[in-house]
Parts: sequence; C-alpha cells; structure tokens
Amino acid sequence: MEVFIEPIGRLMNEFSKLPGVGKKTAQRYAYRVISMTEGEAREFADAIINVKRRVRFCKICGNFTEEETCAICKTRDSGTICVVKEPKDVIALEKLHEYKGVYHVLHGVIDPMNGVTPNDIRAKELLARIAEGNVKEVIMATNPDVEGEATAMYLAKLIKPLGVKVTRLAHGIPVGGELEYTDEVTLSRALIDRKEI
Amino acid sequence: MEVFIEPIGRLMNEFSKLPGVGKKTAQRYAYRVISMTEGEAREFADAIINVKRRVRFCKICGNFTEEETCAICKTRDSGTICVVKEPKDVIALEKLHEYKGVYHVLHGVIDPMNGVTPNDIRAKELLARIAEGNVKEVIMATNPDVEGEATAMYLAKLIKPLGVKVTRLAHGIPVGGELEYTDEVTLSRALIDRKEI
Repeated sequence: MEVFIEPIGRLMNEFSKLPGVGKKTAQRYAYRVISMTEGEAREFADAIINVKRRVRFCKICGNFTEEETCAICKTRDSGTICVVKEPKDVIALEKLHEYKGVYHVLHGVIDPMNGVTPNDIRAKELLARIAEGNVKEVIMATNPDVEGEATAMYLAKLIKPLGVKVTRLAHGIPVGGELEYTDEVTLSRALIDRKEI
Repeated sequence: MEVFIEPIGRLMNEFSKLPGVGKKTAQRYAYRVISMTEGEAREFADAIINVKRRVRFCKICGNFTEEETCAICKTRDSGTICVVKEPKDVIALEKLHEYKGVYHVLHGVIDPMNGVTPNDIRAKELLARIAEGNVKEVIMATNPDVEGEATAMYLAKLIKPLGVKVTRLAHGIPVGGELEYTDEVTLSRALIDRKEI
C-alpha cells in the first residue's frame, strides 16, 4: 500500500520540480493546497497557466515582458546598456531605483566546460544593438565568478573596437563587512581598486 | 513602474501562500514555472485542481482518501485505533511499516486559548467508533506538547469507562541522542519511565 494516495503523490511530485523542494516540503505544500477552498486552488492553477501564456521575452533586451517590447526598453535612455546573465539580475538592479538605462539579458554566460559557447547566449543581439550607433556605455554586470568574468571580458573585447565605453561593476569589501572575514581575492581587489578620499 | 510584470507578480503571490515561502523563494518558483514547457505547466496546474477534486476525508477515520472509506479502514484490524492530530501524522506512522491497526484523525487538538473546544475536533466520532464494541485498544499519538497532552488526557478519561485500554506513545531520549543535550523534561520522563533490561 502506497503511503500517499495518488492525487497527493502526483501533486507532491509536481512541487518537487521547484528548485530546492524536497519530499518533505512538497508534502507540506500539497497539504496546504488540500486545505485551500476550490476557488483558491483554481486561482493558483490559473496563475501557473497564465504566466506561461502571457510572459514572453522582450525582442530588444530579452527580459520578461507581456508585450513585444518591455516597459524598460520603451521608456528609458538607451544610451547605456547594462548586460546581465538572467532576468532575475534585472530585478536585483531595478530594486535599487538608481539605474536609469536599459538592459541586455544574455540568458546564460559562456561556459565551455558545459558546452555553452558565445552562440548560445544573446551576444550577437547585443552587438547588433550597439551597431545601431546610439550606445555610449555598456556596463558588464555578469556575476563575479569564472564564467561571468570570462563572458564580460569576451564581450568587452568585441565592443571596445566599436568606440563604446565598457565598464564592469566594482569589486570590494561588502558594505558593513569586516576585513578579517573578507576572502583574500576580494581583499586584494579592494586594495588594487582603492580610491582617493 | 512595478519591478515584476503582472503575471509574474500574481504567480509569486500565489506561491507566497504556501507555508514558509517568502518573496525571494516565490520569485525562484515563479521563474522555474516560466522556464517550464506549456505541457509541464499544464500538468502542474492540473495536479492542483485534481487534488482538490479527488481528495476527501474518510468517513470512518477522517484521513485523506479518494473513496468514501480509506484503504486503511477497509483492510486493517479495527481492534486498535491510533489517534492523531492530522493526516500528516498518519503518514509519519505508516512510514514505519510496523503499525497494523487503524487510525482516527482528530483534525486538531483541544486548545481553549485559541477557541478550540472538544466539539471542534473529531472526538464524538471517536467515541461512536468505540461504542460499536469491537475496539480493544486506543493509542493516543497526539504531539507531546501542552495541547496534545491535554487532548490525550481528555479523551482517555472518556474512553476508559467504556472498558477499553488507552495507551500513550512513550517519551524518552531520542535514539542516537545524547544525555547532555536532552532537555530536562524529556530526561526526567526517561528516568521515570525507565525499563528493566
């Protein structure tokens, strides 16, 4: 005799597909759904279908949008492009309410060990945008890991000859961090990139 | 301008209703759904609707079932009833593959501070089952907290006069645990309930 009846087991299996959700968490989620009203469960299911039906990628920047072009590309200064790996990085930057330029979502970073070449990310699309002539600065905001750095360097090499300024997010000690607990690579970068005060 | 577009914000809101899911986790879940195929998203949504449509409570024990009576009530020895707070407690016990009797799910415990009286849990139904005369033992398996203990004591008082044996799960040091790290109440119970070896 199976411990879970079929409909519960099936829903647990679906929840298990979400990132970081194990069997125990999937069970808690499934039990929460069972305790919902019919209407609540219907709204939950609708939201899932709806997100797949309505969300697509902006044809300019590659970020999530409901229309052909996203609200950021439509309304912002396109003279500065911030290049990120994923849509969630756009969210992280937008939360600051400081950046006023547009974005370019690569949907990945170059990672030869895992078979991701420059052709697998939206590199060509970025160069095409820059070729249009309006861009003054490209900010490389890929993650500060091996793949992110390599991707930033690769793209910078292609963009610089076009006469466009290419910058990279600063490295250094996190605000509120302590010297003692900062890793050596970061501390070394903080020393090299020291600023006059 | 909202940071999230409407369909994503709406799905994040739905995921936030699941236990322990904050905004960051809801975002990760929503992005995972966006990266699913149409078919996968449809299956996920269907599993939610399906669980609400097919899962109901066993009319005898109150556990989850797809039919009027659950598979456990249909096939097991009804001479022993194990009383638990919630359906998830049945799962915890069933995983042992040791208990061969039936269950009674109270769907709550007596908690006067939060307005839960004996009438709000399936206490009457338990007494009705015992009144049928076939029951030899009732195992109180409510949680070892204040409400669980009080509920077990309350029910035991009502059941004992009917000439039925009432037992309670043993307290003691967890297997593999250490004396040093066992809380005082548990250690004291382990001493009182010591067994001859």
